[in-house]
Amino acid sequence: MQEEIVFYTNPWSRGGIVHWMLEELGQPYRMVVIEYGPPMKSPEYLAINPMGKVPAIRHGNTVVTEAAAICAYLAETFPEAGLLPTPEGRGDYYRWLFFTAGPLEMALSLKAANFTLSAEQQMQFGCGSCETAVDTLAQAVAGRRYIAGDSFTAADIYVGSHIGWGMQFGTLDRRPEFEAYWNGLKDRPAHRRTEEAIAKAMPAEPTPSG
Amino acid sequence: MQEEIVFYTNPWSRGGIVHWMLEELGQPYRMVVIEYGPPMKSPEYLAINPMGKVPAIRHGNTVVTEAAAICAYLAETFPEAGLLPTPEGRGDYYRWLFFTAGPLEMALSLKAANFTLSAEQQMQFGCGSCETAVDTLAQAVAGRRYIAGDSFTAADIYVGSHIGWGMQFGTLDRRPEFEAYWNGLKDRPAHRRTEEAIAKAMPAEPTPSG
Repeated sequence: MQEEIVFYTNPWSRGGIVHWMLEELGQPYRMVVIEYGPPMKSPEYLAINPMGKVPAIRHGNTVVTEAAAICAYLAETFPEAGLLPTPEGRGDYYRWLFFTAGPLEMALSLKAANFTLSAEQQMQFGCGSCETAVDTLAQAVAGRRYIAGDSFTAADIYVGSHIGWGMQFGTLDRRPEFEAYWNGLKDRPAHRRTEEAIAKAMPAEPTPSG
Repeated sequence: MQEEIVFYTNPWSRGGIVHWMLEELGQPYRMVVIEYGPPMKSPEYLAINPMGKVPAIRHGNTVVTEAAAICAYLAETFPEAGLLPTPEGRGDYYRWLFFTAGPLEMALSLKAANFTLSAEQQMQFGCGSCETAVDTLAQAVAGRRYIAGDSFTAADIYVGSHIGWGMQFGTLDRRPEFEAYWNGLKDRPAHRRTEEAIAKAMPAEPTPSG
């Protein structure tokens, strides 16, 4: 028997990345919406993710948290979905997954919070300056349809979500490199289904977080 | 012919993680030390990593940056080294690699810089509060010899390095969970060789960064 995939999320969170991943995967899943505030910090949910954050998945006995980790886990666990890179794309696959989850997230979060790094801190922090991190991302996607090799992979879902969402919410400039890359991804049927499902699940209000 | 692995690093950087990984891997590699300052921002090195950061590797035509990405890439490219998880450990493997590269790095960096997050920022930032991130890590390693399944994997190199190094430099408290986990890793011959090589390459001075 196929083990159930349970997807813990909130429409206002980074769970949208995993939502898209699940739609691309083509496996059945059950979505559980966790509200911000007490439900996300309840003992039941903290047993899934002690960070009190969404998204998370439970697949049989396996719990995975962190959107990028969930993408990497699902791509590898269901290779028939074709979301893994070829060996030639593997370096870029991990490079840009970890770059986006680490330095880019950090750079954009610091910028959003108006924290400015000194030259010494830029050396110590993995993200360096926000400008350098964003320039590096722009260079990575420039002239490329996919970020890791010649085919669509889970890394496009993760990196693409950051780019599409970043431009939508104004945390990332609408550079031509970002627009071109995102335009090649956003109309995928699985992404459209995800957007519709999220819009339906959203009543109104907060800013994206999680 | 086997393609050469070139390892760009600096003894004061997070390159030590990759150094250990390469020693565990058992493949020949060539180490290139990049000095901080102008050499790390030279056009030649920026062509490898536009972030102007070490570590990075070049393996044939593949360039990989980000210490965690390099660990994941090498473990998968050289499966005979036995540094990949079993399918049962795969969820934890990706979960803790990405947790450490993302929220934990961010939480400890913010703390080192004395940036304090408001309750709203804790909701928006992937790391939440520093205390919660460190508690989550402690819970992840508590009572476990290895972080992903029953065998040593690349995730132990990456997570273990953060824990061992964090305690050494005082960015992470010496909690019993961290000590126990680190004590099970630090005497591996590959780690000892790495420490000796790094000590030899260090003249004196700066704080760890990269």
